[in-house]
Amino acid sequence: MIKPEYRERLLAHIGRYVQLPAEEAEYFVSLVSHRSTTAREILLRQCDIANESYFVLEGCIRAYTLDNKADEHVMHLATNDWWITDMYSLITRKPGNYTIECLEASEVLVMPREKQWDIYDKYPRMERYFRVLMENAYVSTLQRIHDNLSLSAEERYLNFERKFPGLVHRIPNKHIASYIGVTPEFFSKMKKRMLKNS
Amino acid sequence: MIKPEYRERLLAHIGRYVQLPAEEAEYFVSLVSHRSTTAREILLRQCDIANESYFVLEGCIRAYTLDNKADEHVMHLATNDWWITDMYSLITRKPGNYTIECLEASEVLVMPREKQWDIYDKYPRMERYFRVLMENAYVSTLQRIHDNLSLSAEERYLNFERKFPGLVHRIPNKHIASYIGVTPEFFSKMKKRMLKNS
Repeated sequence: MIKPEYRERLLAHIGRYVQLPAEEAEYFVSLVSHRSTTAREILLRQCDIANESYFVLEGCIRAYTLDNKADEHVMHLATNDWWITDMYSLITRKPGNYTIECLEASEVLVMPREKQWDIYDKYPRMERYFRVLMENAYVSTLQRIHDNLSLSAEERYLNFERKFPGLVHRIPNKHIASYIGVTPEFFSKMKKRMLKNS
Repeated sequence: MIKPEYRERLLAHIGRYVQLPAEEAEYFVSLVSHRSTTAREILLRQCDIANESYFVLEGCIRAYTLDNKADEHVMHLATNDWWITDMYSLITRKPGNYTIECLEASEVLVMPREKQWDIYDKYPRMERYFRVLMENAYVSTLQRIHDNLSLSAEERYLNFERKFPGLVHRIPNKHIASYIGVTPEFFSKMKKRMLKNS
């Protein structure tokens, strides 16, 4: 059994997307387990197969990939009330592209993949919850690709601040630079310029 | 009523993902209409709101976006049995990022957005069809981002040939170059080099 406050957090998140009878909501909550992580803890390594999704209660988690020069690229960041996993691997059952690492000591709820897939048959309304989450994740990825093409790095940084309020003060600049698609050197110059002009 | 052969094509596609009772399948088919397009015909313009999805029966359709220098980027290509739309705009109801243009005279089935959303309530099994399509689209986009970071342009071109068999002979090189993320000049040199080495 997870703590009542964690249960409420997850139920509130589900309630944003779908109205569930109490029985279904309780069933859903019964499938997740709680996990406390340390900073720098790795939840999944690139090339392993993803078997879990993580709902972040507290803390910050990143998913990053290594390119063909072994440089890191931050693909996703998750803070409070976000789900994170290697969706490619979770769905295809192929070795994943991401390493999932806690940037801070974090509290997460863990949903095992096989239980998630069982829910779809048992409670079709939960399929809607995951369809909408999937739509949101897809749309957000499409928008990020578009932003990388059409917005300046400064505009992308301002978007980042809106999307992740306060996070710029919690995690190293290099991860933010990577997420918005610039080098740490460029990022540092850009921030100095923005401060001077503000 | 759409032609029986178009009906069969759409039903076969649905059948790959979900088993439907005849009544539900018929209802789904009753929602789409058929449209013949000319080459170069525009189905949606960037900054308009997407109200339809297109299932390609014959032909080839691209979704492209303009960056902040007004250069074109081919974001999606759809050939036989693929759905295409501006998913960002369709879901968020905000002005879209894509222009959707037929590269060849095409035959498509058109699904109006409001009817698609109605189906979710009427027939939950159809929600599964769209959830799985959404998962596939999302996963394919994540994989493409990863390929752009981790594969050479040659490898990406070979992936393109596998993903879209024969399409390289049907559409201009500049669109393929754009899809795999290289300039037309680089693409032309690369193909010459690949031919010489083969």
